Amino acid sequence: MDAIDIERVADPELTDPVLIEGLPGVGHVGKLAAEHILEELDSELVRRLYAEEFPPQVTIDDEGVASLTCAEFHAVHTPDDAPDLLVLTGDHQAATNAGHYTLTDAILTIAESFDVERAFALGGVPTGELVEEYTVLGAVTDAALKESLEAVDVEFRADEPAGGIVGVSGLLLGLGKRRGLDVACLMGETSGYLVDPKSAQAVLEVLQSVLSIEVDFGSLEERAEEMEEVAGKIREMQSQQTQIPSDDELRYIG
Amino acid sequence: MDAIDIERVADPELTDPVLIEGLPGVGHVGKLAAEHILEELDSELVRRLYAEEFPPQVTIDDEGVASLTCAEFHAVHTPDDAPDLLVLTGDHQAATNAGHYTLTDAILTIAESFDVERAFALGGVPTGELVEEYTVLGAVTDAALKESLEAVDVEFRADEPAGGIVGVSGLLLGLGKRRGLDVACLMGETSGYLVDPKSAQAVLEVLQSVLSIEVDFGSLEERAEEMEEVAGKIREMQSQQTQIPSDDELRYIG
Amino acid sequence: MDAIDIERVADPELTDPVLIEGLPGVGHVGKLAAEHILEELDSELVRRLYAEEFPPQVTIDDEGVASLTCAEFHAVHTPDDAPDLLVLTGDHQAATNAGHYTLTDAILTIAESFDVERAFALGGVPTGELVEEYTVLGAVTDAALKESLEAVDVEFRADEPAGGIVGVSGLLLGLGKRRGLDVACLMGETSGYLVDPKSAQAVLEVLQSVLSIEVDFGSLEERAEEMEEVAGKIREMQSQQTQIPSDDELRYIG
Amino acid sequence: MDAIDIERVADPELTDPVLIEGLPGVGHVGKLAAEHILEELDSELVRRLYAEEFPPQVTIDDEGVASLTCAEFHAVHTPDDAPDLLVLTGDHQAATNAGHYTLTDAILTIAESFDVERAFALGGVPTGELVEEYTVLGAVTDAALKESLEAVDVEFRADEPAGGIVGVSGLLLGLGKRRGLDVACLMGETSGYLVDPKSAQAVLEVLQSVLSIEVDFGSLEERAEEMEEVAGKIREMQSQQTQIPSDDELRYIG
Repeated sequence: MDAIDIERVADPELTDPVLIEGLPGVGHVGKLAAEHILEELDSELVRRLYAEEFPPQVTIDDEGVASLTCAEFHAVHTPDDAPDLLVLTGDHQAATNAGHYTLTDAILTIAESFDVERAFALGGVPTGELVEEYTVLGAVTDAALKESLEAVDVEFRADEPAGGIVGVSGLLLGLGKRRGLDVACLMGETSGYLVDPKSAQAVLEVLQSVLSIEVDFGSLEERAEEMEEVAGKIREMQSQQTQIPSDDELRYIG
Repeated sequence: MDAIDIERVADPELTDPVLIEGLPGVGHVGKLAAEHILEELDSELVRRLYAEEFPPQVTIDDEGVASLTCAEFHAVHTPDDAPDLLVLTGDHQAATNAGHYTLTDAILTIAESFDVERAFALGGVPTGELVEEYTVLGAVTDAALKESLEAVDVEFRADEPAGGIVGVSGLLLGLGKRRGLDVACLMGETSGYLVDPKSAQAVLEVLQSVLSIEVDFGSLEERAEEMEEVAGKIREMQSQQTQIPSDDELRYIG
Repeated sequence: MDAIDIERVADPELTDPVLIEGLPGVGHVGKLAAEHILEELDSELVRRLYAEEFPPQVTIDDEGVASLTCAEFHAVHTPDDAPDLLVLTGDHQAATNAGHYTLTDAILTIAESFDVERAFALGGVPTGELVEEYTVLGAVTDAALKESLEAVDVEFRADEPAGGIVGVSGLLLGLGKRRGLDVACLMGETSGYLVDPKSAQAVLEVLQSVLSIEVDFGSLEERAEEMEEVAGKIREMQSQQTQIPSDDELRYIG
Repeated sequence: MDAIDIERVADPELTDPVLIEGLPGVGHVGKLAAEHILEELDSELVRRLYAEEFPPQVTIDDEGVASLTCAEFHAVHTPDDAPDLLVLTGDHQAATNAGHYTLTDAILTIAESFDVERAFALGGVPTGELVEEYTVLGAVTDAALKESLEAVDVEFRADEPAGGIVGVSGLLLGLGKRRGLDVACLMGETSGYLVDPKSAQAVLEVLQSVLSIEVDFGSLEERAEEMEEVAGKIREMQSQQTQIPSDDELRYIG
């Protein structure tokens, strides 16, 4: 196996395809959002991306059959005039700095092979406290991309997120821009402590408006309610105790 | 030296050879099992595999003579119609993600040079508590491999182990599958705290049935009794104290 | 993207150019000093240096537009006979040993493409206590470079800094010397606990004299006053408590 | 710069040269011993070995002049029939597993360029307690090398050191053996807590006998006395306190 190994599964014709990236990250917002698209819309697996930078790991399916860890690209054919989607999901980011660059380069090369000219990197931005109103923060490769996003309530704040954007989402912006791709990063505000389906829904609602697609949120709302119960218990704990649970205790409960 | 350096020691003809992998891991189950085969059956060293990903280390033998750390392949000629064995043992896994991929690729290349078409990756699966009954959990590259294993009481459980299978055993499944090799991973249940000869025996009993080989378990049972004493003392400690020994205190006592 | 990727932005003619390096380090002295030059003197961005060894990260500007992390070279055309400057700034050093070598090699190659024959690596040297008098310590690739620096009160002390000089500044000396470049490292004494504009000013005052350039220190002095207040509060805390703040609590407050 | 960069400083003719390696390690025994040879015998710097695996660092000499971190080979012309020496010293080992292999390969290549056929890797072996009698433990690439060493009281103990020998000393044995070089590792017993000149002297006394060279131990004995005072204080502390200093407190006091 090479450092990166791309398996071609299918090569459908896509109309004006848009890359949607949802790898694991803060609050698993991007991952939840991208996976929800695949749950709700008909899709077709088109590429598997294997990488030596991923953990040396297989996952076991419900039949006990093993599959090597990979990132997957699914094509979604949308009705009417909406652009088709190329949705990237997976369980891992890279393990090293250099690995993130190699991985994102490979992702962009796959996207280009489908003539993708626009991409959305989905993720969360941590607020450090339980979120009441789910704002979506944006960052773009080109200021001209902001208008249509601001029209659907995406906020652009000077120099935010303060620490920049890291990982594959960050590099899709950084390396995508250098390749001439139009990329927007949509970051749902989230506490950073919990897997956050509500934040994922906020991000998806932006995507819906921008891409003229329609997604049912029933299952995501159910999951959000479960998480609300968890969050409620945490608030209770916080009011009963002076000592609040540490970040480690709270992180990614879900 | 290259990243991987393979030393050809012997090139015997093998009949229908099956790769048996037993590198260090949970409870040292796989390592104990593979080494026990080599103790009990006549074998011949056929390859040494050196890797820059292994620790920079030599081991010293009973004469004070040093040997560079390596993984070793031994050939076992079995009687009658049983398939011959190619047994992989060693003291280390790789140090990095990429290293695991490179190492497992090299292992598969050596196996292919002996026309291996089937492999068993041996290991342990941690239960977190002292085990009473030694179940063997299975995972395979192809659902068709399950029937013969289920016939000898290997259990296949949907989506288990939950965290997947990591390290060389995992990649033998993942990369082996991609190369068209039939691989089964046999994981003996084990506490995860102790070197576990009983779990190794459970795994070997499965192998015995599946491969029609015969191994004496005397020495393994002796070692198991020693470990039972250790486990007994731990149970005693646990009943006397509310505070049980931490994972770190218990891990790999042996 | 390659391990190193150099983007040519402009190629001005430079007269007798001198490389000034100010990447992050102890007390951010070098970074503050180099950035202050760019704030006070007219400059032109000439190169961006991208590296897989930098974090996989973009920064977001005041318009919400993302830019891939890089180091930047700005050209400063100085008046009269003063040498022109090639100022290197950025937010990161490399992540690995090998990465530092690769990065510094690339920096030297860029410098050579502008016919740079002299370089100043700017940084801080930690004293472990709050500094009253801002001495600048020097190290050079060639003893002949000392005289002009000692004339402006740079101190050379046998075998100091005791731990040598690490990071890009160190390698500019080490690799620059091997390439025949004249390099001096100017290290402002600093506590090591605080971002230290005063130490940066001390370093710049040396540069001013040596390079016959003139820089206004107003904004740096303002920032120094703010830091003095912080330092004052720390002194107060120290006198009120026997338990002084740990290094971790104090490091890089600012 | 390449991953490894060898600078040829001189190319003297050497008679039957023996490589002596003394890089940093347990108790700094090997480093002290090798450096003591260079202090006591006339030597000539012949090679500098630079490596990207070394820290990105320069050292500063008594004139304030910087030199890039490297390992150095000095040639020692011995009188009469004694073999000439090629002494390897330096301040660092490699940072990664693969780096140790690359580094040791380069060392062996340099040794071969001087027609070295024999090598001694010098080091310490930790006993965990203050040592009264300074035994030297041996390990060899070939059992035939033991006789002459046992004749001068080097001990060979089955399977010791139990954890094998790590780092450059270990790989000189492991990789040297594979290249057909005769290598012996001489390990002075040492507490592991203190820089140990006495252990270095014990190792050097073995070398003296085996190589028919003569070294004055005056300066090493002085340093040993200083260390004895430190050790004495530690013993005192131990008898006064039930709580002995932790490994971390004691390690490499000197």
